[in-house]
Amino acid sequence: MSNTFGNIFRLTTFGESHGPAIGGVIDGVPAGFRLDTDAIQHQLDRRRPGQSAIVTGRRESDTVQLLSGIFDGVTTGTPIGFIIPNTDQHSSDYDAMRDLYRPSHADYTYTAKYGLRDHRGGGRSSARETASRVVAGAIARQILESKGITVTAYTSSVGPLSLDRPYTALDLSLADSNIVRCPDADMARRMIELIEQVKADGDTIGGIVTCVIKGVPAGLGEPVADKLNATLASAMMSINAAKGFELGMGFEGSRHRGSEVIDPFEAGHDGSVHTTANHSGGIQGGITNGADIYFNVAFKPVATLLRPVETIDADGNTVTLKARGRHDPCVVPRAVPVVEAMAAITLLDAWLMNKSSRL
Amino acid sequence: MSNTFGNIFRLTTFGESHGPAIGGVIDGVPAGFRLDTDAIQHQLDRRRPGQSAIVTGRRESDTVQLLSGIFDGVTTGTPIGFIIPNTDQHSSDYDAMRDLYRPSHADYTYTAKYGLRDHRGGGRSSARETASRVVAGAIARQILESKGITVTAYTSSVGPLSLDRPYTALDLSLADSNIVRCPDADMARRMIELIEQVKADGDTIGGIVTCVIKGVPAGLGEPVADKLNATLASAMMSINAAKGFELGMGFEGSRHRGSEVIDPFEAGHDGSVHTTANHSGGIQGGITNGADIYFNVAFKPVATLLRPVETIDADGNTVTLKARGRHDPCVVPRAVPVVEAMAAITLLDAWLMNKSSRL
Amino acid sequence: MSNTFGNIFRLTTFGESHGPAIGGVIDGVPAGFRLDTDAIQHQLDRRRPGQSAIVTGRRESDTVQLLSGIFDGVTTGTPIGFIIPNTDQHSSDYDAMRDLYRPSHADYTYTAKYGLRDHRGGGRSSARETASRVVAGAIARQILESKGITVTAYTSSVGPLSLDRPYTALDLSLADSNIVRCPDADMARRMIELIEQVKADGDTIGGIVTCVIKGVPAGLGEPVADKLNATLASAMMSINAAKGFELGMGFEGSRHRGSEVIDPFEAGHDGSVHTTANHSGGIQGGITNGADIYFNVAFKPVATLLRPVETIDADGNTVTLKARGRHDPCVVPRAVPVVEAMAAITLLDAWLMNKSSRL
Amino acid sequence: MSNTFGNIFRLTTFGESHGPAIGGVIDGVPAGFRLDTDAIQHQLDRRRPGQSAIVTGRRESDTVQLLSGIFDGVTTGTPIGFIIPNTDQHSSDYDAMRDLYRPSHADYTYTAKYGLRDHRGGGRSSARETASRVVAGAIARQILESKGITVTAYTSSVGPLSLDRPYTALDLSLADSNIVRCPDADMARRMIELIEQVKADGDTIGGIVTCVIKGVPAGLGEPVADKLNATLASAMMSINAAKGFELGMGFEGSRHRGSEVIDPFEAGHDGSVHTTANHSGGIQGGITNGADIYFNVAFKPVATLLRPVETIDADGNTVTLKARGRHDPCVVPRAVPVVEAMAAITLLDAWLMNKSSRL
Repeated sequence: MSNTFGNIFRLTTFGESHGPAIGGVIDGVPAGFRLDTDAIQHQLDRRRPGQSAIVTGRRESDTVQLLSGIFDGVTTGTPIGFIIPNTDQHSSDYDAMRDLYRPSHADYTYTAKYGLRDHRGGGRSSARETASRVVAGAIARQILESKGITVTAYTSSVGPLSLDRPYTALDLSLADSNIVRCPDADMARRMIELIEQVKADGDTIGGIVTCVIKGVPAGLGEPVADKLNATLASAMMSINAAKGFELGMGFEGSRHRGSEVIDPFEAGHDGSVHTTANHSGGIQGGITNGADIYFNVAFKPVATLLRPVETIDADGNTVTLKARGRHDPCVVPRAVPVVEAMAAITLLDAWLMNKSSRL
Repeated sequence: MSNTFGNIFRLTTFGESHGPAIGGVIDGVPAGFRLDTDAIQHQLDRRRPGQSAIVTGRRESDTVQLLSGIFDGVTTGTPIGFIIPNTDQHSSDYDAMRDLYRPSHADYTYTAKYGLRDHRGGGRSSARETASRVVAGAIARQILESKGITVTAYTSSVGPLSLDRPYTALDLSLADSNIVRCPDADMARRMIELIEQVKADGDTIGGIVTCVIKGVPAGLGEPVADKLNATLASAMMSINAAKGFELGMGFEGSRHRGSEVIDPFEAGHDGSVHTTANHSGGIQGGITNGADIYFNVAFKPVATLLRPVETIDADGNTVTLKARGRHDPCVVPRAVPVVEAMAAITLLDAWLMNKSSRL
Repeated sequence: MSNTFGNIFRLTTFGESHGPAIGGVIDGVPAGFRLDTDAIQHQLDRRRPGQSAIVTGRRESDTVQLLSGIFDGVTTGTPIGFIIPNTDQHSSDYDAMRDLYRPSHADYTYTAKYGLRDHRGGGRSSARETASRVVAGAIARQILESKGITVTAYTSSVGPLSLDRPYTALDLSLADSNIVRCPDADMARRMIELIEQVKADGDTIGGIVTCVIKGVPAGLGEPVADKLNATLASAMMSINAAKGFELGMGFEGSRHRGSEVIDPFEAGHDGSVHTTANHSGGIQGGITNGADIYFNVAFKPVATLLRPVETIDADGNTVTLKARGRHDPCVVPRAVPVVEAMAAITLLDAWLMNKSSRL
Repeated sequence: MSNTFGNIFRLTTFGESHGPAIGGVIDGVPAGFRLDTDAIQHQLDRRRPGQSAIVTGRRESDTVQLLSGIFDGVTTGTPIGFIIPNTDQHSSDYDAMRDLYRPSHADYTYTAKYGLRDHRGGGRSSARETASRVVAGAIARQILESKGITVTAYTSSVGPLSLDRPYTALDLSLADSNIVRCPDADMARRMIELIEQVKADGDTIGGIVTCVIKGVPAGLGEPVADKLNATLASAMMSINAAKGFELGMGFEGSRHRGSEVIDPFEAGHDGSVHTTANHSGGIQGGITNGADIYFNVAFKPVATLLRPVETIDADGNTVTLKARGRHDPCVVPRAVPVVEAMAAITLLDAWLMNKSSRL
């Protein structure tokens, strides 16, 4: 429900931006899998604040402590509880915001829902919560990789700058070769310059992350309520600042005729079935067809500007907000590992659910 | 899970396109609400096949039988079970498809998942299943309306034809005044002509449905896993042929700077809080802020063309498929009430979940 | 939740005693299983009212209509929706009870919860709802039997009459050889005489059902929240009139020392592990150990007496209730197939959940 | 599912007996409640090992660290994550048991399910896990008390020693006045002597805990799958070593006639409805009627004897087990606060679910 993702492979997260720690519990991890804990930390490092000049300056080591569910390095089938201590809170930066509602933030909506909120660093609404998802995603990813399934995301747009080539024309292994995580070096340079300019302006900017999942067997996903496109959409839209999701040709596909976008089938010499095009993005009727899954996630610009903004306080008075805190001018570079994590969690859950589709 | 929507207000559906009936069970309907059963049938009529020249010619009365959960016209709090008999199956139309995989359909993916499938009329993967959702949506809608919440969807694009005005510049009450369900009469005429042309060509075409929810109180939605944008995205992407979802400015918003798209707060004379813009689409941090919720859903063109198409059979032989069956050249007009139904189901569930957010 | 049983193999039921039909949806049925529909009807016949002189005289054929999820006699993996029409309602028998609260019935509690109720035949609180469970149980049972798992229940007590032999000393195949479903012919005769006497007195009587599950592989059940003993307890206590559950030695075991009741392990020549005693009832730490599962379920006497009873109406007036309706003097004989059904549903769900315990 | 309790008020636990910590996440805590954290620690102290001469000698301070969900002492509506560090593990005590299956323990069943297990201190199957439940229960209890609902459990039997008076004839406030938690001082003394004798014999003994819930409003609980008696049964049977549950008259009630055990209604001068007897234990049709809820939970004797026991190892060899570890001769005194915790969790969940039973 509220703070739990998944059906069989289930992640429940907790924690506020400025509390002692964030963390979670991962239930449904299959037993007998040897975990690479360094690889978990590596994924956290990819999401970590302070990793480059174009992300927030908050300095968190984001060191995960795995508390259970692993014995002699192998999963036991029991839940993996973990915490990530918060170490670099500057809570006093937020004192002035205690009774303010920052525009386009969750300050007002949390207060409307709960009657109060932890205002420090955005509390629970902070994207810091996604670090817990990266932990679970890093575990799911390892299990998927043992089955030949890989998940790779990259920055495909920053503001108006957009890669005009499809993922199939890119070398995705280059995504992490630059700080904006765009696999096209020239475009990466331009994106970085734009983010630096936006930051210098005290402004922020949106962007798009594209994610590609390869090696998926046909038959994953459920047919109606838990169509894999639906669970992926939910997983992605649950990431902070996500405002749009499209699978395969997505919105562009809606502008076309059927004859232009159907994906013809072809039989391999070995009797295998595959499609000769992939406008569908690897999912038909909610279930994978064995082709690559690919999708886009749109992120709005961060709502916290580093310039004065007018807003109101809880008493309805107009006030001028001068954000202190430390904020990303563009979330997209750090959203890349979060998108991958949520994709991995969703895929592994579908993979496990599919185990009971036949006797 | 697989065939169940919602947490508290829960719909579980069953049924295949060519079985004796489809139907469902709606659990979690609050007690004491006087239902207008004619209004349920009216929503089914809006989704019904055979309703106009631009939709499938299958002739189903789609008469719902409510079997439980209502006493003297009032909900009792116990589940509402219902069936909609199938009456106009032409199953023999599908005999030739028994061992074929139609391109971009679920034929292959169901077979890959389950090892077999009911091939008649697409079986469970048929959009006929959405009639059951319309029943639950029609009930949810009535309850929401009693709370001042209204849900209205309309066709905003058919292929390349797209309304260039936002919903705020349209008279949404006109959406049902034409068979394509576009509230702009001139655009509606052009869309209808395009669909007729596409149909004459034996082809199909995609489109976009826009949905607007008004009167939503601030505070609905959950903060992390069940962000209202996430549950709406999942609900919409679970509709047959849906390939994209965007809330508020969505993908377009990702191209902008924060200073251009934040939604300033303003206090009313009565102390109420509202925003002076609504780029966010009424949801911030996963929770409603009291502004209108609006979103787009992209639908791909129907995969069944009424012209010969090459494909393969289960043995890998290339065969030519000449679809018989009766199919929509464009799903969008009939998707409008389904989008509304899923929106209503999702909102009511959020409304009921929110009852326990405070003591 | 409220009207749904199970996690993967999930049954959602609907329907009131005097509505047009009861029924349900069974989701999570694995694909590819050839169902014996006669065997489903056979189980319903075992639960059917009017089957003998010692059960209620209501005459229902209890004919199930399977509406989906089966193609050419084989499960397709999609939900099985079904209805059982109500045909012999005598709703007017209940007119006088409309505003009464029958003692020890759910009349008052439903009204307290929902503000209203369908008073006819007990509405949703009628044990008639369990017919839907028997349908799902009959399907689960067939699947379990294909895996070598059998479920057998029998009447072990009626009022003070109690079998003093354990199930291992009985021929369980004789349970259905008499109308009270006790495998000991002499005890069965005495139980039947007692029920007839109680009925002649216008009274009712309680009893105990014992259930035995054989052929269970070791390893089923979850370790903490869904311990198999916990899910079995919940399943059994959800049956109308159930007031107690005990596994293995149960309450009697609590009176003993550990040295008297531990179950020693022994290795077979083939390396298999088994226990030389079974005080635990086949479950240790919530998970099966391969020994027989056995448990008792206590049922209170039916609350409707066929003699005048004083009670109050909704206005607080004292009134004399003279039950008309048709009621069981003892629920136990008809509870036997319901206990079996719930056991089969619970076991199959555990069996399917266990598929994801390892990669 | 596996490690999660509840629907709205949901506890997910993690942790092994000898890992760095156990803990959990409590989701669905209503916002705006001022928590008494000392009272949480007090409940943990009641369950703590080493608290008296008749419980295990393991020395754990069981200090809970609340990590989230609370701001300025008040619940925020976001999840409460917490850990309880393990500090007094003697893991080497278990070295000899690594490849053994202790009789009537979960060693074999975990291995059968998962293929491996953390053998140290029983790993996840240790009753140490219940400390996490006590934390959640202590929070639920405070919220319930603010609504006038109280939960009290006590030891009613130890082995053959059984209180012969009903709870209504006892002063329940005396339950904690002795180390066995029996409110009858004389019986308490005899129970303590028995446990000491059993301990001296290197043996263990079972017992029964009785729980009473007062101040419950009518209308809590769900009518079919989540009958309150079913969810209570599941909650109780999920406690380590629990083997039986009975509500109200329970098994004894099954031996009676209906005329002897129905609970007549009576109207108060203020129009309130209550019963003049309470054989039902406060629940009718799965829903509370406003009378006290009371039930018994049977616990088997602890399986670890402090005397040599023969068993087998993973290779099927017969070996003699000489338990070291530190174990309770009787779990019942420490089970009392666990029973209360699970009752409080279950009741609060029902209370919150009931909020959506009407509009």
